[in-house]
Amino acid sequence: MKPSRAAGRRGRSRERKVQVAPPFIKRQIPFYEYLGEEGLQKLEDQADWIIQEIGIEFRDDPLALEIWREAGADVKDTRVRLERGMARELCQTAPSEFTQHSRNPQKTVHIGGESQVFAPVYGPPFVRDLEGGRRYGTFEDFEKLVKIVSQLPSLHHSGLVIVEPCDLPVSKRHLDMVYTHMKHGDKPHLGAITEKSRAEDSVAMARILHGEDFMENNCVIMGNVNTNSPLMVDRVVTEAAQVYCGANQGLVVAPFILGGAMGPVTTAASIAQAFAEAMMVGAFTQLVRPGAPFILGNFLSSMDLKTGSPTFGMPEPVISNLVIGQLARRLGVPLRCGGSLTASKLPDAQAAYESADSMMSTALGGANFVLHAAGWLEGGLCTGYEKLVMDADRLGAYQVMLGGLATDENGLGRSAYDEVEPAGHFLGCSHTMSNYETAYYDAKLSDSTNVEQWEEHGSKDTARRAYERWNELLDNHQVMPLDEAKDEALQEYISQRKAEIPDAWY
Amino acid sequence: MKPSRAAGRRGRSRERKVQVAPPFIKRQIPFYEYLGEEGLQKLEDQADWIIQEIGIEFRDDPLALEIWREAGADVKDTRVRLERGMARELCQTAPSEFTQHSRNPQKTVHIGGESQVFAPVYGPPFVRDLEGGRRYGTFEDFEKLVKIVSQLPSLHHSGLVIVEPCDLPVSKRHLDMVYTHMKHGDKPHLGAITEKSRAEDSVAMARILHGEDFMENNCVIMGNVNTNSPLMVDRVVTEAAQVYCGANQGLVVAPFILGGAMGPVTTAASIAQAFAEAMMVGAFTQLVRPGAPFILGNFLSSMDLKTGSPTFGMPEPVISNLVIGQLARRLGVPLRCGGSLTASKLPDAQAAYESADSMMSTALGGANFVLHAAGWLEGGLCTGYEKLVMDADRLGAYQVMLGGLATDENGLGRSAYDEVEPAGHFLGCSHTMSNYETAYYDAKLSDSTNVEQWEEHGSKDTARRAYERWNELLDNHQVMPLDEAKDEALQEYISQRKAEIPDAWY
Repeated sequence: MKPSRAAGRRGRSRERKVQVAPPFIKRQIPFYEYLGEEGLQKLEDQADWIIQEIGIEFRDDPLALEIWREAGADVKDTRVRLERGMARELCQTAPSEFTQHSRNPQKTVHIGGESQVFAPVYGPPFVRDLEGGRRYGTFEDFEKLVKIVSQLPSLHHSGLVIVEPCDLPVSKRHLDMVYTHMKHGDKPHLGAITEKSRAEDSVAMARILHGEDFMENNCVIMGNVNTNSPLMVDRVVTEAAQVYCGANQGLVVAPFILGGAMGPVTTAASIAQAFAEAMMVGAFTQLVRPGAPFILGNFLSSMDLKTGSPTFGMPEPVISNLVIGQLARRLGVPLRCGGSLTASKLPDAQAAYESADSMMSTALGGANFVLHAAGWLEGGLCTGYEKLVMDADRLGAYQVMLGGLATDENGLGRSAYDEVEPAGHFLGCSHTMSNYETAYYDAKLSDSTNVEQWEEHGSKDTARRAYERWNELLDNHQVMPLDEAKDEALQEYISQRKAEIPDAWY
Repeated sequence: MKPSRAAGRRGRSRERKVQVAPPFIKRQIPFYEYLGEEGLQKLEDQADWIIQEIGIEFRDDPLALEIWREAGADVKDTRVRLERGMARELCQTAPSEFTQHSRNPQKTVHIGGESQVFAPVYGPPFVRDLEGGRRYGTFEDFEKLVKIVSQLPSLHHSGLVIVEPCDLPVSKRHLDMVYTHMKHGDKPHLGAITEKSRAEDSVAMARILHGEDFMENNCVIMGNVNTNSPLMVDRVVTEAAQVYCGANQGLVVAPFILGGAMGPVTTAASIAQAFAEAMMVGAFTQLVRPGAPFILGNFLSSMDLKTGSPTFGMPEPVISNLVIGQLARRLGVPLRCGGSLTASKLPDAQAAYESADSMMSTALGGANFVLHAAGWLEGGLCTGYEKLVMDADRLGAYQVMLGGLATDENGLGRSAYDEVEPAGHFLGCSHTMSNYETAYYDAKLSDSTNVEQWEEHGSKDTARRAYERWNELLDNHQVMPLDEAKDEALQEYISQRKAEIPDAWY
């Protein structure tokens, strides 16, 4: 099988892969229309009804209420109601697709339409790995995880809080996090949102890296916020919108709804509520700055009926991934939903079943930006080192599935039958030889050897193989070097801000 | 939360579940049309071209060739070619949907159209469980596994060779296998196919159980056969067709193609070849007896490029599950494909990721009869006790997903907002109270407790919980008792046949 050429390719494979992996997914297959027209209209009608009749609370940010009043909203105390259709209309100035630039132009992504972008887990305070067990995340973990993500071709985006660096003061850690993504990664990433000043720091650092002029017309950083479901938006969200969208940067808004707690217990009702909340914030972003990138999100979790705990990877959120995709496309804005979600504490079978079903529906549903696409454990409380590389391996498989089926001359391979008779075999025929290197997805963590070979190699389970893989990726970490002058300027900014900001742990 | 009523329901839950679980899935959602019209036509054209130009080998069964000749086929030696369109036309007498009756009428299934039926793994010589490890299957294992399957509501069909009972002579074990399904299960099942006389024994036993008259017009048993890809059909297949279809019973035909070996290495070409082979056998079944139930199958495996080993749960077979579904619907016959497939040796994360992606696409693709829906390990060489109940738990989730999204008044739950203000919670509101018992899928094996509770309960992984569950199901095994007279008649038939048949181990 052309061993010399194959060996030559293998020798360069790491380097080549990093260079040639597509920076995001260009979907080649139809969207799956799970819910029919009548059902979709009912959900849209319910969202309009919520916005008009019940309204959304906008709390702790008088400026936000002022913006709403000026736009002609019905504002009573902190309750904001819009006439039917107004939220939808305001969303129309948001781009249906946009580009988020990275400092490495080869890693720049396109978000929206038929483009899909996968990013790692966001927000857990804990980490777990096979040897170290479960513990609070530290800045050392944070840096390692950013480095690992930078080496995984199926993660197109670096996210932000891949784990909380709990050993750094809360008031300052955003500076170190943003810097780490800029220095040790070269994919696009998010900025901080927990306080207005932290969002401003993130945008200021992006200005140092990308230039103020460039950012006036191009998205290089985004904030990711949750509404306070049900039907409440606090100032974290409205201030993030003012900072990010005010600078013409992006905002991702994902209502997090545990059905039966933060939304009605029926799935249709929770989807409609999430859609109403996200559309309302989308409308707000466009009042702040028409044309600023906005991603409509949905994060619906079901419930364990015995314990009341949130569950993940269950059929109800699977359905919601598919349906919110339909609603976002009808509204004409990019979508965030799903991820490789699980309630499992370990990277075991439960974790994998739940993550796969959650992520397959996310991929099919057309999510344009997928946070938590890899590394999530324990309902989002814990980042798993092994889980990160395991999920990423499967993301590559979804990427192939989204690429469609080639039915061209080579795909149909009639020439193979010139060489192979019935009852023969195709192992050495020309069609096989010229296609075998690219015919099938090369899953790094699936062991397909027979049981004897597998036992000879130590009977390793998936988690053990994943442990070895992330260590190898970490050892071989390499990204496009950060420009030295910019690096210095970033470090100077951080030093100055750290001197100004008092240590705080909340 | 109405504790007394809930407790009352829980008390009866096992008994009630067995009675009320739907005997098969009535799909309520659209099929997913992965491939466009042009691509589908190309695949159909390729299948027609294969049948007309290359033809299919029918070996070791002169009667089969005679049947083809009489039908007007072009038969040269053992090569059978049909004019374009003839195979498709012959398939038109096969029912697009049919009923397979069970001895327990509540377990009778409908196969085809929008009905989907899940059956366990078929054929492995080995078993594995957490305590006993990996070993050859025995009749004791076989009986235990049939009993466990009988208690799993998401498995609608009992299959046949859930593991090979390797301690029984090959020449006789089919009698014990078929009897065990009839005695210790009460779901529909398959019959033997490995030799003509074994198929005849299976049909004879079904006649004792269901009555000869009834079987003349009703399907109660089916055979499941593989073609010898590429493009060869041996007498196991043609004789099974003569026995089962001759008795107006069903035949499932699934080409097993490892791409690059038994078919071209490109996915489109392998799908077309599988379609040609299965359609050709389908045509043959209708020559044997027009109107006999026929299920068109597809079993496409990809390959590990480093080792040449078959891989499972990869994106190429996922695509084939979706596309063969489109082709089968266009042909108008029921479809078998997919399953919970994996190359993993253990019920670990690899097994779960691969099984989930394989099975989700199977479910979405509309497979009407799914063999290997639970219990498969090691590329089909091993039946996993834990894997069986783990997969079955996830099958219940697919069942919910296939059931659609309720957007009726209750589903939209507007009344919930009469009680719950923005920033409130829905935990105790009437809408939640009246829906919480049925709102979410109750996964038996997913642990959603927090890490402290989980550690308190022994930090069990999924496999450990599955071990406990299958033992519990086995302890509580209960099915509709077999009619005593029929039981005696079956035993008499088996004794007589065992006296006639010499022990043989091949």
